[in-house]
Amino acid sequence: MVKDDNVIFIGSKPFMNYVSGVVMQFTTQDSKEVIVKARGNFISRAVDVTLIVTKNFLEGQVEIKDIKIDTEELENKKKKMVKVSTIELTLAKKK
Amino acid sequence: MVKDDNVIFIGSKPFMNYVSGVVMQFTTQDSKEVIVKARGNFISRAVDVTLIVTKNFLEGQVEIKDIKIDTEELENKKKKMVKVSTIELTLAKKK
Repeated sequence: MVKDDNVIFIGSKPFMNYVSGVVMQFTTQDSKEVIVKARGNFISRAVDVTLIVTKNFLEGQVEIKDIKIDTEELENKKKKMVKVSTIELTLAKKK
Repeated sequence: MVKDDNVIFIGSKPFMNYVSGVVMQFTTQDSKEVIVKARGNFISRAVDVTLIVTKNFLEGQVEIKDIKIDTEELENKKKKMVKVSTIELTLAKKK
Protein backbone atom coordinates (compact mmCIF):
# COMPACT_ATOMS: atom_id res chain seq x y z
CA MET A 1 0.00 0.00 0.00
CA VAL A 2 1.31 3.41 -0.94
CA LYS A 3 0.19 6.04 1.55
CA ASP A 4 -0.52 9.58 0.42
CA ASP A 5 2.31 11.11 2.44
CA ASN A 6 4.72 9.20 0.21
CA VAL A 7 4.03 11.92 -2.34
CA ILE A 8 6.19 15.04 -2.25
CA PHE A 9 4.72 17.86 -4.34
CA ILE A 10 7.39 20.31 -5.54
CA GLY A 11 6.60 24.04 -5.35
CA SER A 12 8.33 27.31 -4.50
CA LYS A 13 9.53 26.57 -0.95
CA PRO A 14 13.29 26.49 -0.33
CA PHE A 15 14.91 23.70 -2.34
CA MET A 16 16.32 21.82 0.64
CA ASN A 17 12.86 21.50 2.21
CA TYR A 18 11.92 19.10 -0.57
CA VAL A 19 15.20 17.22 -0.47
CA SER A 20 14.91 16.62 3.27
CA GLY A 21 11.22 15.78 2.84
CA VAL A 22 12.11 12.95 0.47
CA VAL A 23 15.08 11.78 2.54
CA MET A 24 12.98 11.67 5.71
CA GLN A 25 10.27 9.63 4.02
CA PHE A 26 12.86 6.96 3.30
CA THR A 27 14.68 7.17 6.63
CA THR A 28 12.42 8.13 9.56
CA GLN A 29 9.18 6.93 7.86
CA ASP A 30 10.88 3.87 6.37
CA SER A 31 8.92 4.19 3.08
CA LYS A 32 9.76 1.76 0.29
CA GLU A 33 8.71 4.26 -2.36
CA VAL A 34 8.41 8.04 -2.62
CA ILE A 35 6.80 9.86 -5.55
CA VAL A 36 8.08 13.32 -6.44
CA LYS A 37 5.44 15.27 -8.37
CA ALA A 38 5.49 18.66 -10.07
CA ARG A 39 3.64 20.78 -12.61
CA GLY A 40 4.75 23.36 -15.19
CA ASN A 41 7.96 25.22 -14.41
CA PHE A 42 8.49 23.22 -11.22
CA ILE A 43 9.26 20.12 -13.31
CA SER A 44 12.95 21.12 -13.58
CA ARG A 45 13.06 21.47 -9.80
CA ALA A 46 11.52 18.04 -9.27
CA VAL A 47 14.28 16.57 -11.45
CA ASP A 48 16.92 18.46 -9.40
CA VAL A 49 15.46 17.18 -6.10
CA THR A 50 15.34 13.60 -7.40
CA LEU A 51 18.94 13.67 -8.60
CA ILE A 52 20.29 15.23 -5.38
CA VAL A 53 18.56 12.51 -3.35
CA THR A 54 19.63 9.58 -5.53
CA LYS A 55 23.17 10.79 -6.30
CA ASN A 56 24.09 12.40 -3.01
CA PHE A 57 22.00 11.98 0.14
CA LEU A 58 20.84 8.41 -0.43
CA GLU A 59 23.33 7.28 -3.05
CA GLY A 60 23.40 3.50 -3.43
CA GLN A 61 20.26 3.14 -1.30
CA VAL A 62 17.54 4.70 -3.44
CA GLU A 63 17.05 4.50 -7.22
CA ILE A 64 14.78 6.05 -9.84
CA LYS A 65 12.19 3.38 -10.60
CA ASP A 66 9.93 5.22 -13.00
CA ILE A 67 9.42 8.60 -14.68
CA LYS A 68 6.04 9.56 -16.12
CA ILE A 69 4.93 12.76 -17.82
CA ASP A 70 1.40 13.83 -18.60
CA THR A 71 -0.87 16.81 -19.26
CA GLU A 72 -3.39 18.13 -16.74
CA GLU A 73 -6.16 20.66 -17.19
CA LEU A 74 -6.36 23.34 -14.52
CA GLU A 75 -8.38 26.48 -13.93
CA ASN A 76 -6.09 29.52 -13.82
CA LYS A 77 -6.60 32.73 -11.84
CA LYS A 78 -8.76 34.17 -14.60
CA LYS A 79 -11.07 31.10 -14.34
CA LYS A 80 -9.88 29.88 -17.72
CA MET A 81 -8.99 26.22 -18.32
CA VAL A 82 -5.32 25.80 -19.19
CA LYS A 83 -3.19 22.75 -19.90
CA VAL A 84 -0.03 22.15 -17.89
CA SER A 85 2.58 19.43 -18.11
CA THR A 86 3.16 17.21 -15.07
CA ILE A 87 5.91 14.85 -13.98
CA GLU A 88 5.92 11.94 -11.53
CA LEU A 89 9.28 10.55 -10.49
CA THR A 90 9.05 7.33 -8.50
CA LEU A 91 12.00 6.68 -6.19
CA ALA A 92 12.38 3.26 -4.59
CA LYS A 93 14.64 1.73 -1.97
CA LYS A 94 17.16 -0.64 -3.54
CA LYS A 95 16.69 -4.27 -2.52
CA MET B 1 21.63 3.76 -36.57
CA VAL B 2 20.61 6.92 -34.77
CA LYS B 3 21.94 9.99 -36.54
CA ASP B 4 22.88 13.10 -34.62
CA ASP B 5 20.16 15.23 -36.19
CA ASN B 6 17.61 13.01 -34.48
CA VAL B 7 18.46 14.98 -31.36
CA ILE B 8 16.52 18.17 -30.66
CA PHE B 9 18.16 20.29 -27.99
CA ILE B 10 15.68 22.56 -26.19
CA GLY B 11 16.73 26.15 -25.47
CA SER B 12 15.26 29.65 -25.51
CA LYS B 13 14.04 29.87 -29.12
CA PRO B 14 10.29 30.21 -29.70
CA PHE B 15 8.46 27.15 -28.40
CA MET B 16 6.93 26.14 -31.75
CA ASN B 17 10.38 25.96 -33.39
CA TYR B 18 11.11 22.90 -31.26
CA VAL B 19 7.70 21.35 -31.79
CA SER B 20 7.98 21.65 -35.57
CA GLY B 21 11.60 20.47 -35.41
CA VAL B 22 10.49 17.23 -33.75
CA VAL B 23 7.46 16.80 -36.02
CA MET B 24 9.57 17.32 -39.14
CA GLN B 25 12.12 14.74 -38.01
CA PHE B 26 9.34 12.17 -37.95
CA THR B 27 7.57 13.31 -41.10
CA THR B 28 9.91 14.78 -43.74
CA GLN B 29 13.04 12.99 -42.43
CA ASP B 30 11.13 9.77 -41.69
CA SER B 31 13.07 9.15 -38.46
CA LYS B 32 12.06 6.17 -36.32
CA GLU B 33 13.24 7.89 -33.15
CA VAL B 34 13.81 11.45 -31.99
CA ILE B 35 15.53 12.39 -28.74
CA VAL B 36 14.49 15.62 -27.02
CA LYS B 37 17.25 16.85 -24.70
CA ALA B 38 17.42 19.73 -22.22
CA ARG B 39 19.39 21.04 -19.26
CA GLY B 40 18.44 22.98 -16.12
CA ASN B 41 15.38 25.21 -16.40
CA PHE B 42 14.74 24.07 -19.98
CA ILE B 43 13.73 20.62 -18.68
CA SER B 44 10.13 21.78 -18.14
CA ARG B 45 10.07 23.06 -21.72
CA ALA B 46 11.37 19.75 -23.09
CA VAL B 47 8.48 18.00 -21.31
CA ASP B 48 6.01 20.51 -22.81
CA VAL B 49 7.39 19.97 -26.33
CA THR B 50 7.26 16.18 -25.94
CA LEU B 51 3.65 16.21 -24.73
CA ILE B 52 2.46 18.60 -27.45
CA VAL B 53 4.00 16.34 -30.10
CA THR B 54 2.71 13.04 -28.69
CA LYS B 55 -0.74 14.28 -27.62
CA ASN B 56 -1.52 16.71 -30.41
CA PHE B 57 0.55 16.92 -33.58
CA LEU B 58 1.46 13.23 -33.90
CA GLU B 59 -1.14 11.67 -31.61
CA GLY B 60 -1.49 7.94 -32.17
CA GLN B 61 1.64 7.87 -34.35
CA VAL B 62 4.45 8.66 -31.91
CA GLU B 63 4.90 7.51 -28.31
CA ILE B 64 7.26 8.24 -25.42
CA LYS B 65 9.65 5.29 -25.35
CA ASP B 66 12.00 6.33 -22.58
CA ILE B 67 12.75 9.16 -20.15
CA LYS B 68 16.18 9.50 -18.55
CA ILE B 69 17.49 12.11 -16.15
CA ASP B 70 21.08 12.71 -15.15
CA THR B 71 23.55 15.26 -13.80
CA GLU B 72 26.17 16.97 -15.95
CA GLU B 73 29.13 19.12 -14.95
CA LEU B 74 29.52 22.33 -16.88
CA GLU B 75 31.77 25.37 -16.73
CA ASN B 76 29.71 28.51 -16.06
CA LYS B 77 30.47 32.05 -17.24
CA LYS B 78 32.73 32.62 -14.23
CA LYS B 79 34.80 29.54 -15.23
CA LYS B 80 33.50 27.63 -12.24
CA MET B 81 32.35 24.01 -12.53
CA VAL B 82 28.65 23.64 -11.73
CA LYS B 83 26.30 20.68 -11.78
CA VAL B 84 23.12 20.82 -13.83
CA SER B 85 20.32 18.32 -14.27
CA THR B 86 19.61 16.95 -17.73
CA ILE B 87 16.72 15.12 -19.34
CA GLU B 88 16.51 12.91 -22.42
CA LEU B 89 13.07 12.05 -23.73
CA THR B 90 13.07 9.39 -26.46
CA LEU B 91 10.10 9.53 -28.82
CA ALA B 92 9.49 6.63 -31.21
CA LYS B 93 7.17 5.93 -34.09
CA LYS B 94 4.47 3.46 -33.13
CA LYS B 95 4.67 0.16 -35.02
